[in-house]
Amino acid sequence: MGKKYVYSFEEGKADMKGLLGGKGANLAEMTNIGLPVPTGITVTTEACNDYYAQGGKMPEGLEAEIKEKMVGLEAKIGKNFGDAANPLLLSIRSGAKFSMPGMMDTILNLGLNDQTCEAMVKATNNERFVLDCYRRFIQMFSGVVLGLEHHKFESVLDAQKEKRGVHFDTELDADDLREVVAAYKKVVKRETGNDFPEDPMQQLLLAVQAVFGSWNNQRAIVYRRLNQIPDDLGTAVNIQSMVFGNMGEDCGTGVAFTRNPSTGEKALYGEYLINAQGEDVVAGIRTPQPISKLQEEMPVIYQQFVDICKTLEQHYQNMQDIEFTIEKGKLYILQTRHGKRTANAAIKIAVEMAAEGLIDKNEAVLRVEPGALDQLLHRRIDPAAKFEVIAKGLPASPGAASGTVVFDADEAEKQGQSGQKVVLVRTETTPDDIHGIVAAQGVLTSRGGMTSHAAVVARGMGKPCVCGCEAIKINYAEKLFSVNGTVVREGDTVSIDGATGQVILGTVPMIDPELSPEFQELLGWADDIRTMAVRANADTPEDAAKAREFGAEGIGLCRTEHMFMAQDRLPVVQEMILAETLEDREAALEKLLPVQQGDFYGILKAMEGFPVYIRLLDPPLHEFLPNIEELVVEITELKCTGGDKNLIAEKEELLRKVRQLHEFNPMLGHRGCRLGVTFPEIYAMQVKAIYQATAQLVKEGVDAEPEVMIPLVIHVNELKMLREQAVEIAKAVQQEHGIDFDIHIGTMIELPRAAVTADEIATQADFFSFGTNDLTQTTLGFSRDDAEGKFLPDYINKKILTDNPFVVLDQAGVGKLVKLGTDLGRQANPALKVGICGEHGGEPSSIGFCHRIGMNYVSCSPYRVPIARLASAQAAAGGESSVSTK
Amino acid sequence: MGKKYVYSFEEGKADMKGLLGGKGANLAEMTNIGLPVPTGITVTTEACNDYYAQGGKMPEGLEAEIKEKMVGLEAKIGKNFGDAANPLLLSIRSGAKFSMPGMMDTILNLGLNDQTCEAMVKATNNERFVLDCYRRFIQMFSGVVLGLEHHKFESVLDAQKEKRGVHFDTELDADDLREVVAAYKKVVKRETGNDFPEDPMQQLLLAVQAVFGSWNNQRAIVYRRLNQIPDDLGTAVNIQSMVFGNMGEDCGTGVAFTRNPSTGEKALYGEYLINAQGEDVVAGIRTPQPISKLQEEMPVIYQQFVDICKTLEQHYQNMQDIEFTIEKGKLYILQTRHGKRTANAAIKIAVEMAAEGLIDKNEAVLRVEPGALDQLLHRRIDPAAKFEVIAKGLPASPGAASGTVVFDADEAEKQGQSGQKVVLVRTETTPDDIHGIVAAQGVLTSRGGMTSHAAVVARGMGKPCVCGCEAIKINYAEKLFSVNGTVVREGDTVSIDGATGQVILGTVPMIDPELSPEFQELLGWADDIRTMAVRANADTPEDAAKAREFGAEGIGLCRTEHMFMAQDRLPVVQEMILAETLEDREAALEKLLPVQQGDFYGILKAMEGFPVYIRLLDPPLHEFLPNIEELVVEITELKCTGGDKNLIAEKEELLRKVRQLHEFNPMLGHRGCRLGVTFPEIYAMQVKAIYQATAQLVKEGVDAEPEVMIPLVIHVNELKMLREQAVEIAKAVQQEHGIDFDIHIGTMIELPRAAVTADEIATQADFFSFGTNDLTQTTLGFSRDDAEGKFLPDYINKKILTDNPFVVLDQAGVGKLVKLGTDLGRQANPALKVGICGEHGGEPSSIGFCHRIGMNYVSCSPYRVPIARLASAQAAAGGESSVSTK
Repeated sequence: MGKKYVYSFEEGKADMKGLLGGKGANLAEMTNIGLPVPTGITVTTEACNDYYAQGGKMPEGLEAEIKEKMVGLEAKIGKNFGDAANPLLLSIRSGAKFSMPGMMDTILNLGLNDQTCEAMVKATNNERFVLDCYRRFIQMFSGVVLGLEHHKFESVLDAQKEKRGVHFDTELDADDLREVVAAYKKVVKRETGNDFPEDPMQQLLLAVQAVFGSWNNQRAIVYRRLNQIPDDLGTAVNIQSMVFGNMGEDCGTGVAFTRNPSTGEKALYGEYLINAQGEDVVAGIRTPQPISKLQEEMPVIYQQFVDICKTLEQHYQNMQDIEFTIEKGKLYILQTRHGKRTANAAIKIAVEMAAEGLIDKNEAVLRVEPGALDQLLHRRIDPAAKFEVIAKGLPASPGAASGTVVFDADEAEKQGQSGQKVVLVRTETTPDDIHGIVAAQGVLTSRGGMTSHAAVVARGMGKPCVCGCEAIKINYAEKLFSVNGTVVREGDTVSIDGATGQVILGTVPMIDPELSPEFQELLGWADDIRTMAVRANADTPEDAAKAREFGAEGIGLCRTEHMFMAQDRLPVVQEMILAETLEDREAALEKLLPVQQGDFYGILKAMEGFPVYIRLLDPPLHEFLPNIEELVVEITELKCTGGDKNLIAEKEELLRKVRQLHEFNPMLGHRGCRLGVTFPEIYAMQVKAIYQATAQLVKEGVDAEPEVMIPLVIHVNELKMLREQAVEIAKAVQQEHGIDFDIHIGTMIELPRAAVTADEIATQADFFSFGTNDLTQTTLGFSRDDAEGKFLPDYINKKILTDNPFVVLDQAGVGKLVKLGTDLGRQANPALKVGICGEHGGEPSSIGFCHRIGMNYVSCSPYRVPIARLASAQAAAGGESSVSTK
Repeated sequence: MGKKYVYSFEEGKADMKGLLGGKGANLAEMTNIGLPVPTGITVTTEACNDYYAQGGKMPEGLEAEIKEKMVGLEAKIGKNFGDAANPLLLSIRSGAKFSMPGMMDTILNLGLNDQTCEAMVKATNNERFVLDCYRRFIQMFSGVVLGLEHHKFESVLDAQKEKRGVHFDTELDADDLREVVAAYKKVVKRETGNDFPEDPMQQLLLAVQAVFGSWNNQRAIVYRRLNQIPDDLGTAVNIQSMVFGNMGEDCGTGVAFTRNPSTGEKALYGEYLINAQGEDVVAGIRTPQPISKLQEEMPVIYQQFVDICKTLEQHYQNMQDIEFTIEKGKLYILQTRHGKRTANAAIKIAVEMAAEGLIDKNEAVLRVEPGALDQLLHRRIDPAAKFEVIAKGLPASPGAASGTVVFDADEAEKQGQSGQKVVLVRTETTPDDIHGIVAAQGVLTSRGGMTSHAAVVARGMGKPCVCGCEAIKINYAEKLFSVNGTVVREGDTVSIDGATGQVILGTVPMIDPELSPEFQELLGWADDIRTMAVRANADTPEDAAKAREFGAEGIGLCRTEHMFMAQDRLPVVQEMILAETLEDREAALEKLLPVQQGDFYGILKAMEGFPVYIRLLDPPLHEFLPNIEELVVEITELKCTGGDKNLIAEKEELLRKVRQLHEFNPMLGHRGCRLGVTFPEIYAMQVKAIYQATAQLVKEGVDAEPEVMIPLVIHVNELKMLREQAVEIAKAVQQEHGIDFDIHIGTMIELPRAAVTADEIATQADFFSFGTNDLTQTTLGFSRDDAEGKFLPDYINKKILTDNPFVVLDQAGVGKLVKLGTDLGRQANPALKVGICGEHGGEPSSIGFCHRIGMNYVSCSPYRVPIARLASAQAAAGGESSVSTK
């Protein structure tokens, strides 16, 4: 007994998404709860995977099973496949476990041939309609199955229109279309050497294989990579009887969301077209009507649809994205799925559904993808700013962006990768443009609606998008667009506001986002659920205040080197570095002490009541000195031009010192606590500044909680030595001021040796803070500065790595060391506090990992604090986000 | 009941070295086998450690126990401590578990005061002798216990000689010495404010504490660090009744080895002085007589001594280093210990003792410290060379060296650290000069014998040393020495030959060492014992041949980048690197293919029958291009001087490309298999060259065994991709030539991620080769180029690290990853071969580690192959070297 490869809709249900794909499982579910779904069957993802496992061959038994199931289908519908009198026509659609809209192939009207075409003409009494279906079918099948290019058929159609002197497809009559069909078939014969397949069953089997094949087309692969969908899931194939939205004015098709996917508002939101097939809506070629208009045009159908929407939302306990077709006054539901939504909408919907009692708070928290919050935390155009709006389109994806105009996805990618901010401008986008959208700051299209490709994709990526901005006229050849007399050329700067649809010439001032009450409410729920603390990386009192605003419970990483870089301090810092004797160095440090003390006073005060982890000086000293190459050029020029001898000597002396400090691999050089080991006086000054600031605050009645963090430790002995020095200084300050405060000293774990000897190190540490940026660099041997520009893109493209390890924690490699270090540290010192302060501390999947290995806190940039709060809560609630907001 | 802190010699035995120290344990052992040892007691190392644990206080009960044991001692000897009639005098000597000659303090003649001095005068009827002892004791006690400087007393002595118009100490009579003693006491009173302690028991207790204190003097700490002796062992204190070698012409003192410590010859080897104390021999102040002369001067004593030597060697089954004193015609043995020896001697002694049946072959192999073989594998002066010998001294430590002359240990250290080769020239050396000897290529002294400080220390370090070269007259003030009319100044170059005692002006040609038959025999035994294969790191057929000569069983690391660096190839390599298109790059690679094929042909042929692990291109490409700074200077100069526009443009274009390839951290950059991932054509060329060379050799009937080694792997996917490419090429070569050969492809494990994901990587690897140089750099975050010059010395000095981790494998950190990688790799692929090819592969303690974790082989530089063979055998024989040759 072989595998069961084909399921009728009656045999499936919603939780069979893995096997039947999301679409198939939902069609089955809807069929079983009594909704008007066109009858059909689903070929499983397992069949697809077996197809690939066998090197692209139909798995054994599949053909027979399809044929057998087709018999049942025919019986249910009462039409026969290929029947000369009452032929059954089919739609063939892909459907993977996770929705990949538009990425894979679809074929409609399958089963048409010369014979069934005539039968359909008789059955529908609408020759023109049937012939139009037929010519569309040939074109679609030829593209998907036979690999023939679209334009080969378009030119036939254009020729026919020209011959008849008309402008629109709809102006061609039945006879014209008959000629077009004949010409299409000639194209197939000419291009493939074979006749267009007339046998409906052959058409079906070829179509199934073509859908399987489309799982691995380039754009599907790119989409999966972007959305972190595994490559080995495979797609199911849904074979469903056709219904027609394009048989006349009592027909139509549309898509609708049960709530607004952009704002989350509880109101039906969607579009439809009368006398059209679904592809017309999705492709954005005709601009559709808002769904509310259907109430006027077809009140009964509209009410029926509203009821079905309600049923589906209740049934799935989630906002639904529903496709429907009206065939001669009868409503059919073609698909339902959890609707994609903006982060704002996701929050509003989750909070309101919890209020409605549809879901609980835990589930509400799981309903928002933390990464998507990023878009809410980005800036928007300052409402007080004055600017000239040159055009207005649809507000398709919120947020604002400025960039130079490019008209081509490749160019967008090229400029984007070189660090240029660009806005991609297209008449409309297709899946082939995805890489350009990824690289752009935002997208502007002149055609298509809120559910057009550009809109869906941009919302998924959290990028601003203005769609259907028909006022702009694009001239690709000359690389410009004109709008009301203004000409904007490639390279000119524009701004777009995806929340309002505004298009603006030049850049505009932008402001920080405000957080909605629902956002605050949801984060409050998240705070109740999560077990890890969330802190921020902040170096100034201003950043600390911002972090508190976003809900940070302390600072997990306060870098002290930025304080050294300030224009007024750098000369003193350089004096300290260039000192030839301990005395000179100490004299310079003496000048820095009150300044540092002031820094710490400010930041500890701003974080009153919460801990502030202060990292002692970390970067190599040469970072504070002039660059060798510039000095060399300067000296060479001075010499060539007979410059002042004393000046040359002075510069040469400086060069000599800079060279002394020069390092081959600064990342692995004389930095971190190595500075504290060789120049104990530097760390001594910093520690003194920290504790004196603390003493000052304690006297003022402020609850200051400094934690001294020693960076780049590799050996317990380093930490022991520096800890002893710090404790001694702290006690001296306590004694001098006659006050008491807690002394907490810990370390960064950011080198592999620290992780594997964490048991020893933990005996001298009150806390570990995993510095996963550096730990990633050393564990992988990747210098971030070099890797991202030179070879990391190749590593992603060639699928050696699935993610940029500097963005998403490499759990299998770096994570292993993080877990080991945590476990060893806790074994040796059960009171040890463990956290993370690398960039990964603000990345949701990495935060999940931190939770699972039992960390006490994560720390990230202030703007990512809400993301971390939500992601921590989701991890504690036992899962990652259950709804993709992409 | 407290600890037992004091043992009589009768209570101890040889295996109590940890508690009683080496000297104490051996004195006890000798006492118990009936040898004439002056009676004594030993204060344990535990007492010393408790002394430190209590912050430098005598542990409770120790004083009482010493006093109690002293009563027993007095009874045995029949003299009383402090007795006015028949006083007991004592020698107080340090004695740690491991011998640290001259590093800690000794006090002789303790118990003398004004009263006992007179008693001794009566008892010996030798006033001058007793007063000389008394003044020496005051001087020594004042130095060691009271911390007064030597010269304060020397100047008193000099004044007395001047006053009496004599030149030598021996010319001073009893009355003179009485004045000297009185003057010495004044010095003590003046400098310390107190009288010199007259109470013998007070003297004893102070002396014991001073010896404890000397465990942590600076030179002892340096010595321990150099010899890897733990700091927490502590020293014992031996309190022994005095015997006098300086009571007249029937007295004497000497040291002797039971076999020649320099050559290993089985013949008594030593020196003695008539009418002297032991310190006179060791200090090298008077040049002693060879031991054979004693046969003429005191035939009975000599025979008795020869018999005792034989007894001791049989008893300890090892060559002994024996100190003796003759007091009024009676022989006393003061000390025995395993004799330090040169590597050559160690080998000869081990092999001969095995032949004599004294020890077995396993033990013989354990008797030679592998690290010490290094000195045998160094170069010596070419016997065919013509050169002028300007002087001849004692051949105190074999090997030859050239270097610029320095007269001061600090200067030697300074210049040595800056990379200068220096020869340290001194009248004699003291323990204070050790750091200078470490830094020097060799040592030349004008005074002192074969057992003088300079000789002992230099032999221990395997450095060439010429001693007692009295012809050279050193003038420290003018920084020169003159020898037979030639003046040699600081900075001039000399050469010394420690095997012949020759001193040569300028440099001389040197040649490779030959290995003695005993060496070969011992290595043969080692080969029978060891379980790991030993391979060499070699890049040329010449190195491969040298490696085979030293017994290498294949090449563990054949680097291919050196092949790219050759002058005639570099332009083609640069062409390849600077190619803008794949076609151009492939064209350049096409030119390199036959050249690389020739390289591999040569090396595979030279290693016929053994595997050759060929590492594909590893360094970043910019290493093959000109340096940015030089180019910048060149361009700036050209511009300043109005140079040729085309040339400037050309150079600027080159600069642009070099800049493109520039990296911030080349160690963590675009190198290793990352090159193979981004430029698959480079690795393809190399792999093709390897397999075409193999095919060529197979056709010629040569057993060629290439192993393709992929460097810098972090992820199984890299290896999978590159392995597939290599296998494909190999199969194509096989098919083309119609022949068969084994295809072995493996990887370096040299990044932490590779180690922690070794289970995954092993599924694609036939072997792992641990590249512990890079693994150390990334695990510790130490760029070797930067660390060794900048902060590593501080890390050693401040005892954060015990060893340079690039020399001695960091077992606790890097080793943990090596073990993890090995275990994971073997779990996933039990057939996996595992080896090491970092520098640690030639370092004995690291080799022991490799054996213990179950590696299949080690690979090291050709000259260290014998070391690795021996160290592997010792690891397999269940221990490390049992005898220090330091």
